[in-house]
Amino acid sequence: MTDVSGVQTPVPEADASTITREEIFAGHEGGKLSVGITAPLDTKRALSIAYTPGVAEVSRAIAEQPELARRYTWTSRLVVVVSDGSAVLGLGDIGPSASLPVMEGKSALFKNFAGLDSIPLVLSTNDPDEIVETLVRLRHSFGAVNLEDISAPRCFEIEKRVIEALDCPVMHDDQHGTAIVVLAALKAATKLQQRQRSSLKVVISGCGAAGVACANILLADGITDVTVIDSKGIVHSGRENLNSVKVDVAGRTNPDGRTGTLSDALVGADVFVGVSAGKVPEEALATMNSDSIIFALSNPDPEVHPDVAAKYAAIVATGRSDFPNQINNVLAFPGVFRGALDAGARRITEEMKLAAADAIVEVLGDDLAADMIVPSPLDPRVAPAVAAAVARVAGQG
Amino acid sequence: MTDVSGVQTPVPEADASTITREEIFAGHEGGKLSVGITAPLDTKRALSIAYTPGVAEVSRAIAEQPELARRYTWTSRLVVVVSDGSAVLGLGDIGPSASLPVMEGKSALFKNFAGLDSIPLVLSTNDPDEIVETLVRLRHSFGAVNLEDISAPRCFEIEKRVIEALDCPVMHDDQHGTAIVVLAALKAATKLQQRQRSSLKVVISGCGAAGVACANILLADGITDVTVIDSKGIVHSGRENLNSVKVDVAGRTNPDGRTGTLSDALVGADVFVGVSAGKVPEEALATMNSDSIIFALSNPDPEVHPDVAAKYAAIVATGRSDFPNQINNVLAFPGVFRGALDAGARRITEEMKLAAADAIVEVLGDDLAADMIVPSPLDPRVAPAVAAAVARVAGQG
Repeated sequence: MTDVSGVQTPVPEADASTITREEIFAGHEGGKLSVGITAPLDTKRALSIAYTPGVAEVSRAIAEQPELARRYTWTSRLVVVVSDGSAVLGLGDIGPSASLPVMEGKSALFKNFAGLDSIPLVLSTNDPDEIVETLVRLRHSFGAVNLEDISAPRCFEIEKRVIEALDCPVMHDDQHGTAIVVLAALKAATKLQQRQRSSLKVVISGCGAAGVACANILLADGITDVTVIDSKGIVHSGRENLNSVKVDVAGRTNPDGRTGTLSDALVGADVFVGVSAGKVPEEALATMNSDSIIFALSNPDPEVHPDVAAKYAAIVATGRSDFPNQINNVLAFPGVFRGALDAGARRITEEMKLAAADAIVEVLGDDLAADMIVPSPLDPRVAPAVAAAVARVAGQG
Repeated sequence: MTDVSGVQTPVPEADASTITREEIFAGHEGGKLSVGITAPLDTKRALSIAYTPGVAEVSRAIAEQPELARRYTWTSRLVVVVSDGSAVLGLGDIGPSASLPVMEGKSALFKNFAGLDSIPLVLSTNDPDEIVETLVRLRHSFGAVNLEDISAPRCFEIEKRVIEALDCPVMHDDQHGTAIVVLAALKAATKLQQRQRSSLKVVISGCGAAGVACANILLADGITDVTVIDSKGIVHSGRENLNSVKVDVAGRTNPDGRTGTLSDALVGADVFVGVSAGKVPEEALATMNSDSIIFALSNPDPEVHPDVAAKYAAIVATGRSDFPNQINNVLAFPGVFRGALDAGARRITEEMKLAAADAIVEVLGDDLAADMIVPSPLDPRVAPAVAAAVARVAGQG
């Protein structure tokens, strides 16, 4: 077992605190996306091919054989990033227009890391029926749907219904992107520690989109002792006024029937996964088991500063770029969608998510270390590896 | 007056008949659009600016001051090309998926000629309520709406309602793009002939999107004797079972109350504008006045072959790229939308359309001739000139 032994030093290049407001706004002037054309239109001949009269041949062919749309339109490589702006970063319900810079950024990441084309669509409605209906009406405009920053618990119903309604890859990234990378990081950490994951006692702080998905993927991985905490404490079947998602979580987690606070849950825990804005008291960390693993993923303020966490834990990760072990969705979603689209998959399955997590770990190879349990978000090997693994599983489906 | 004197020779470069099916399909492989990013994302610093945590500053600013979305997102230069695939080229109601290659082509033209970004959205509904509702829900995703290939008479109601519902430039190009370029061509033709347009007797074949819009813009230009023909003959107030749009057309055109066929209407006419798939008998052309003007705009088969038309008319135009005087919407829509967006206009007004027509004529300058009444669709001067004229008028509004 490798110990991170003491204070982790920030990586100067990545210190976001040195970025000025001016620099940020200048970087957003005029927006972050553009549309390009794949062939020049500078001759009458080129116009006659790409537009009238030539294009009529292609439209007629697709009308006769609908499956040709995949080949002769951009939909087979087009992901729409869809949000209602109801749960944006740490900002909450800021609405569709204010969420658009985030969605443009997400689309830019799809392009940058997976070579996929992506456009943001922000919706002026929070109604699940209307969101599903709108995507059904737009179905032939795109090849896949990345749901983004939709508040819980609506996000669970919306994702489920959009998956059922559309015959294309759909994923709510706040749920599954986070969950895939958390599982990858935990696999890497336990590989380093030479521990069995199945016997770990895991505490997840947060019962929203990310928390529920993390609980699900860890259970799917074979971990049985998972306890989830929300703002009112441990989620357990005896609590009143739980929404249906939390009732379901309560029924499948917390096997010892614990009650109480986050601090109560952390006594004797091996792993802490923080995906909420809540704070963790330092004294509670001291009650965790030795060799513990702490993923404090809240952004920009982790549930516990990594320097403090490192006093009690063997392995520490955050969501921030200025500390080692940045657990960032960008390690998962570009490759997951690329693999699913490459394979012509109609669904993103649980097997594909697990394969994505494995691929992220494999990229590390011999570089695996306590301060390197996940690759850098900039590592260009990750998305192709994830895409290949996902496409392989899709091909077996 | 200049006479085209005899047979017009095809321009070899533009002869679409030499383009093979293989070439067309190869030109559509993988689609015709791509999304690009306006700044590289190859460092943690760049990621921290374009995505988290930096982007949160921009989102917060827009949440506080909604008008900043125009400055810090791509919407101020983004046109959505929206179709339900109900009236695509000469193909008819081929549905949303088969229409997508046409819409991709349209988006490519926006980029190529006006430097605007554009994405196609095709809708799996023909219901006007649902089309309007969908665009209202998506309103914060774009800066302008180009409605395309929506069948008449629904297109009139849909355009009207979308304009009322959204506070941004909206135009159904099949109507107004065609009308603007027809007016420009007629202005150029009569300038060449040194004739007053107000005394012209005009016959329009077609009472769909393009025919109605052409009638409207010619009436707005001051021409009083306009007669419109549909598949059942001259549109007049005595006809039964006219839809509400045709009742309106009948009330504002055909001042002499003519009845009968296209041939009846053409007797003594000065101008023929064909925007239908119907054919014109050669003997009917012989009954038009001398120095007549024939715009046979049906594609790919003009209402009358330009060689035949030239036997009877002083000036002939078609919609085809392989004959002189190609009347093509691309002369209008890129500059109209660019001008409207540049000016921050909330509407595309009638004044802006008339200014666009004038700008197209002005580009010709001394090149104006019987075989050059409109600039080439590839003329790079047109869109900037149209945009400047439209923005100028918008600024006065």
